[in-house]
Amino acid sequence: MTKIAYLGPSGTYSEVAALQYLQLLYPKGEHNSSLLVPYATIPSALQAVATGKIDLAVVPVENSIQGGVTMTLDSLWEWDKLQIQQALVLPIQNALITRAQTLAEIKAVYSHPQPLAQCQQWLEKFLRNAQVVPTHSTTEGLHLVANDPTLAAIASQRAATLYNLPILACPINDHPDNCTRFWVMALTSPSTKGSHTSLAFSTKKNCPGALVKPLSIFADRHINLSRIESRPTKRSLGDYVFFIDIEASTAEERVKEAIAALSEFTETLKIFGSYTISTISL
Amino acid sequence: MTKIAYLGPSGTYSEVAALQYLQLLYPKGEHNSSLLVPYATIPSALQAVATGKIDLAVVPVENSIQGGVTMTLDSLWEWDKLQIQQALVLPIQNALITRAQTLAEIKAVYSHPQPLAQCQQWLEKFLRNAQVVPTHSTTEGLHLVANDPTLAAIASQRAATLYNLPILACPINDHPDNCTRFWVMALTSPSTKGSHTSLAFSTKKNCPGALVKPLSIFADRHINLSRIESRPTKRSLGDYVFFIDIEASTAEERVKEAIAALSEFTETLKIFGSYTISTISL
Repeated sequence: MTKIAYLGPSGTYSEVAALQYLQLLYPKGEHNSSLLVPYATIPSALQAVATGKIDLAVVPVENSIQGGVTMTLDSLWEWDKLQIQQALVLPIQNALITRAQTLAEIKAVYSHPQPLAQCQQWLEKFLRNAQVVPTHSTTEGLHLVANDPTLAAIASQRAATLYNLPILACPINDHPDNCTRFWVMALTSPSTKGSHTSLAFSTKKNCPGALVKPLSIFADRHINLSRIESRPTKRSLGDYVFFIDIEASTAEERVKEAIAALSEFTETLKIFGSYTISTISL
Repeated sequence: MTKIAYLGPSGTYSEVAALQYLQLLYPKGEHNSSLLVPYATIPSALQAVATGKIDLAVVPVENSIQGGVTMTLDSLWEWDKLQIQQALVLPIQNALITRAQTLAEIKAVYSHPQPLAQCQQWLEKFLRNAQVVPTHSTTEGLHLVANDPTLAAIASQRAATLYNLPILACPINDHPDNCTRFWVMALTSPSTKGSHTSLAFSTKKNCPGALVKPLSIFADRHINLSRIESRPTKRSLGDYVFFIDIEASTAEERVKEAIAALSEFTETLKIFGSYTISTISL
């Protein structure tokens, strides 16, 4: 059976996405949760797949409010041969988890910086006097919340169930259309090539027009870019890796041509493959 | 005299950049530090300029290791008429500030998530057993460090001077070429148009090829894009605002043409103006 790495501990949104992917893999329910293996960081989960220690990793790529998950993009650039099996879109519903009976009792709120940012306006409106404390994961604060009714944590509804703690308010996101896109990564290509392709490249250094040429390669072939994100190469300011999503498959001739043309103008080019997108309904 | 907003408290890298900008404005030294006004957040500093409460704001835009400062980009998109006066590139030298005599005595390290990420490998190598604690600003941990020799903070050398605390190691960045780019924002255009231009736009929704067309407008006119960054519009996943830096001035005919052409294919278009870039030597 397939073993899947995710950003732990149990109760994170990455685990919710990984569980949903298991249901896609085993629609008859012939899986059990021991197939999911928590990792402390996104880089360590991807490393486990890249070095053959585990079959798959489910990693967050982008949130509709906060944007790209830079840790994931930077880690993917470090490895060769990692291929996207599937994209998963998960609606994010942040819950305020606390033993307090009313909002007025809450003195401090714990969560990872991402959910804190996603609930910023709600916190300013309803918990203006509470201290906001960033943690390393959404579930870290739950241990504190369990023992002190003046504390609250922001995490998934699943986390509340797992830790057997009550939810006082849900959803508390500032934007109702809050979604996170995950990628399922493996060392092999998926059996069927999907309609979306992702790739990344760095351009030859000190070359004027370095970005114009690669982008026009797609434009000339009427290939639509659904997303472009730049990340620093960490060499010097103004030196970037570009992550691009296109609305076309590597099975198409025009995409094969574009990739061949692209390799002439790029320094390093990584193709993460073609895949389909599943939207998860909770 | 000109009043300048920056992300406080005193001792942050934003303050160092603002002080350097004052020296550009008043090279004969006829300024004093009371012209600098600390703000608790980047959005509140930009709001103060946009609503005419203060003349200028110095805000971080991009770090060579960590990438774009999403809070700044998202806030700039909220306002109209804000114009870039000047770009400042500041070398970042993170210092380990502590009353400990040796690294072995240190039990916990406090800093903002950005410097913590910038010194990640150094911390793993030299302070493997110390607890790493994220704070809201680089200076927040200095108050704790002052009273406990088992604690350390990562901040600027200026912060160590201001708080009268010793530096045990500096620089401790994983990458020696660590720089942050700042923009100085105001409601008016700078008197001289510089060689670089920044702009942002959203594309018409549900329009295939939405990104291809705007990018080819620049390519067709041989205008080089030195940077492109996508940020979510916060409406739905896959709906973006694009921030673009070009290596050309709005004083040039080809740029005026490109902007006119661009407005046909964009939903909202914001031109942050043309400016020069100063590299600060510490």
